[in-house]
Amino acid sequence: MPVLYHHTMSSASRFIRLVLGEYGLPVELTEEQPWEMRKDFIKLNPAGTLPVMVDDNMRVLCGPTVIAEFLDETSGILKRDKRLLAEDPFQRAEIRRLVEWFLVKMEADVTKPLVRERIFKLQMPPTLGGGAPDSKILRMARGNIRQHLKYISWLAGSRSYLAGSRLSYADLAAAAALSELDYLGEITWAEAPQARDWYQRIKSRPSFRPLLTERVRGVTPVSHYADLDF
Amino acid sequence: MPVLYHHTMSSASRFIRLVLGEYGLPVELTEEQPWEMRKDFIKLNPAGTLPVMVDDNMRVLCGPTVIAEFLDETSGILKRDKRLLAEDPFQRAEIRRLVEWFLVKMEADVTKPLVRERIFKLQMPPTLGGGAPDSKILRMARGNIRQHLKYISWLAGSRSYLAGSRLSYADLAAAAALSELDYLGEITWAEAPQARDWYQRIKSRPSFRPLLTERVRGVTPVSHYADLDF
Repeated sequence: MPVLYHHTMSSASRFIRLVLGEYGLPVELTEEQPWEMRKDFIKLNPAGTLPVMVDDNMRVLCGPTVIAEFLDETSGILKRDKRLLAEDPFQRAEIRRLVEWFLVKMEADVTKPLVRERIFKLQMPPTLGGGAPDSKILRMARGNIRQHLKYISWLAGSRSYLAGSRLSYADLAAAAALSELDYLGEITWAEAPQARDWYQRIKSRPSFRPLLTERVRGVTPVSHYADLDF
Repeated sequence: MPVLYHHTMSSASRFIRLVLGEYGLPVELTEEQPWEMRKDFIKLNPAGTLPVMVDDNMRVLCGPTVIAEFLDETSGILKRDKRLLAEDPFQRAEIRRLVEWFLVKMEADVTKPLVRERIFKLQMPPTLGGGAPDSKILRMARGNIRQHLKYISWLAGSRSYLAGSRLSYADLAAAAALSELDYLGEITWAEAPQARDWYQRIKSRPSFRPLLTERVRGVTPVSHYADLDF
């Protein structure tokens, strides 16, 4: 069985776990602390990014984009109307643009700083940057959430799913990131009812269940986190 | 004819121009100053990244990954042994990993800080961060070059091209970034003869010619920059 090196609070890892879940592909999960830059992990992926998937023949796939494209080519292509990357090149381009938006842009603006300050720094040793959260970084990241939520609301309000009429990688990437922010209680859902309705639908999918049961040591999720009717 | 919004000193833009050149696809070039975040440009690509390609039907493709995948699906697929993204899923994964390495990791470690400090800051107004280069950033970025050059040398020494036996996106992404560093005279080629031999081969391709003739206002390239036998 392939091994997926992941972290429960890495959006890119959650995204790939959701894709694997949707396609029914089992993997063995191994948690990796991304700040450790563990020598044997860097041998697998010199860039040090998560997730990394290693198959039974020790072939290595590094990072969410590479893994998602590989899964589309080897599994998605057989799924017909359940394929998570559309068939049309322009549709595929729009899905990829949105995946990048959520895993790169929103990650840099919001998700990464909040997860790092509120979760990773609790677990990191002081020599690697652990310690109390930086209130300036928290404030800046929180200031960016509203804009991103507005964009998701706009997408969810104008289409059934974020990239069009069918569930796609774009929904899974967005929900992966949002689920971390929701865990931390950082989202005021009342301000974004269209985003909430869409997230409720994605969150109710069986592929989402494992994510909703995981807990981070020392950080209790917001009360509605695992609630499918929040 | 499609329009490509680019900047001559953006590695991602150079990469896509090389791909278009290799596939013989003509585009109209429009230079965009990435630091301006021009309103009409942000409408095309909310993430503000370069390059952006707009086709005759005003369909927009944002960023190097999205454009490269689109070009593979619409042109590459017809090119047989001239296809720049291999056929085998694992080969494709390795090519994509390396493209990301050069356009994300090396970009963050080396190319972006050097281009920003030495070129962009000359042209940016002080209100947007323009001014004299920060010597601490220059020192850090220069310290990272050697490691990246060593990696390229190792790849070039163990394979004909960086991702295997055929020219691929990986070579074009690496050469796009290196060409900017070379313009700035930041590369000590004598230290990396295998990387130099490989770069010389890529640089000699007709697709490279337009890049070698462009000049940045106020910054003269190193004397061997356009020299095919440096």
